[in-house]
Amino acid sequence: MSELKNDRFLRALLRQPVDVTPVWMMRQAGRYLPEYRATRKKAGSFLDLCKNPELACEVTLQPLERFALDAAILFSDILTIPDAMGLGLYFAQGEGPHFKHPVQSRAAVDKLFVPDVETELRYVMDAVRTIRTALDGRVPLIGFSGSPWTLATYMVEGGGSKDFAKVKGMLYDDPASMHKLLDITARTVINYLNAQIAAGAQAVMIFDTWGGALTTRDYKTFSLNYMQQIIAGLTREHAGHKVPVILFSKGGCQWLEDQASSGADALGLDWTLDIGLARKRVGDRVALQGNMDPTVLYASPERIREEVAFILQSYGQGNGHVFNLGHGIHQHVDPEHARAFVDAVHELSRPYHQ
Amino acid sequence: MSELKNDRFLRALLRQPVDVTPVWMMRQAGRYLPEYRATRKKAGSFLDLCKNPELACEVTLQPLERFALDAAILFSDILTIPDAMGLGLYFAQGEGPHFKHPVQSRAAVDKLFVPDVETELRYVMDAVRTIRTALDGRVPLIGFSGSPWTLATYMVEGGGSKDFAKVKGMLYDDPASMHKLLDITARTVINYLNAQIAAGAQAVMIFDTWGGALTTRDYKTFSLNYMQQIIAGLTREHAGHKVPVILFSKGGCQWLEDQASSGADALGLDWTLDIGLARKRVGDRVALQGNMDPTVLYASPERIREEVAFILQSYGQGNGHVFNLGHGIHQHVDPEHARAFVDAVHELSRPYHQ
Repeated sequence: MSELKNDRFLRALLRQPVDVTPVWMMRQAGRYLPEYRATRKKAGSFLDLCKNPELACEVTLQPLERFALDAAILFSDILTIPDAMGLGLYFAQGEGPHFKHPVQSRAAVDKLFVPDVETELRYVMDAVRTIRTALDGRVPLIGFSGSPWTLATYMVEGGGSKDFAKVKGMLYDDPASMHKLLDITARTVINYLNAQIAAGAQAVMIFDTWGGALTTRDYKTFSLNYMQQIIAGLTREHAGHKVPVILFSKGGCQWLEDQASSGADALGLDWTLDIGLARKRVGDRVALQGNMDPTVLYASPERIREEVAFILQSYGQGNGHVFNLGHGIHQHVDPEHARAFVDAVHELSRPYHQ
Repeated sequence: MSELKNDRFLRALLRQPVDVTPVWMMRQAGRYLPEYRATRKKAGSFLDLCKNPELACEVTLQPLERFALDAAILFSDILTIPDAMGLGLYFAQGEGPHFKHPVQSRAAVDKLFVPDVETELRYVMDAVRTIRTALDGRVPLIGFSGSPWTLATYMVEGGGSKDFAKVKGMLYDDPASMHKLLDITARTVINYLNAQIAAGAQAVMIFDTWGGALTTRDYKTFSLNYMQQIIAGLTREHAGHKVPVILFSKGGCQWLEDQASSGADALGLDWTLDIGLARKRVGDRVALQGNMDPTVLYASPERIREEVAFILQSYGQGNGHVFNLGHGIHQHVDPEHARAFVDAVHELSRPYHQ
């Protein structure tokens, strides 16, 4: 593997000095880019694209060709894991993900197993290897997984949900089954992320998209608890380099102190908390990644720069900040606005690192 | 008007002693009740039901016939205000609210006006008067309105939204228009709630359902700020009785201290924060209303009692707690589970008031 030419992202996650604040965007390889839409068309379905290492590599690199991003993120989907468990993932036209065999009973939970990620999810590791080769050390590659709780919401509901009636029904009425499901999923995530790291992922991120839908007790018991187990089970050093871990519970800023004790190197932040206040709350225990509202990208480049300046000022002087959006970039954003965002971070952050 | 026979709810909002913790449920008159579905069928559309004072009264009282609730809430919809502004509210089959004339440009904002609520929304005041007569002092009646920001999301998006692209586009790119829209809406809300109070509403609640979608700065500037103006403009005493005001920003627990300084008597809480911690943060400045996850009602009556017990214990001894769900009751909940919830609050709370 080639030496890394730009290690800002990894250094910031480890709270080491950098020249400017590194920046990437969640869902940076996505539908807002015409070249992504072209590759997607060529691939067939969204799932076909995820399962094709060459094309997954192609879309992973597309945003790097346009913008001065400091990291690449594996193009994939969090639902590859339940798919590998045999739940039968499919995407209905314009309707989001669905499972043919949702896990809606104790009997269904009892049938769950930890899949062999090296065979069942080999296409993901192949994509990681292909991307690392194509990147040639340009920027680091981020691997990722959904959190067990977040995966459980899809596995039990059978798709997306607004109120999580079924999965919370199981959580409240049959916590033993819920724990069993989460335990199997957590063990799978450990194997999955370690396989990604072995294949070349230089940092990993755990997306807990629906942790914020839980009460405080349930967040700790059913979400954070399993993420801690995962973090404890991860390969934290590979090929002589540390592999930082980012934990992101969307809508979970009220539990930041607990997250900071999870063992993660960095925490993702949505946009509902000032990053300066978040920094005060976590101290020097973790780095912070975030936290611009993705809808700011609908505004003018001037307004985008203003918002970037505000967030940089809020974080203040020193190390430990990776700039990002507080959630994935929206599909109707003008790519030129994404460029204004990325460039503004680099241009305006230099004074904070002197 | 008859003397109030059960004033627990009002006393708790004013942090006065009560015998047991009062309880009501957001959306307690709703689709989970077969008798509601029958009246709804009789009325025609949802909007027809809102605009028919006799039938609105009928559904308002239905949950009180079943459960030992300590308050009634006016059956209506937050979107009556933009409808009265001429935006043309309609509900497409199974698709939620839509506006024929959304407010998507500066020119459209410039055309907005403060409608005469006494004439344009007379059906609401008629419903309040009808309900007060029918209640005959049994429990207090709650009036309500959406917050200006929450109303703005529907007015600009033209209906519900997942990412608020249009309304945030206006907020970020044309804040002057957004402020103008919010100012007109806030002045309308003041007139609307004061008219409800004059007609007989004994407490009022401001629903800021989408405040939690904003950044901290924008929440203060574009949502809380206008709710403060509303609270300052409300009739706080009517017919010799105080009229308490409840403010509820869903997903806004990170701003609880700011909300406590808004002038509201009580704050609504969703379920993502322990109510005991919330009480520590707001001190004796406001009462708290909440905060059971509505999905707990899908669990067994035993599990529901357990959750009620936990929340009562978390709040602890003393005054200032109105028990409620952290969001509206779901349509697929078994009414017997709602009964278990209401009864558990009364039965288990007595020791906390001795």
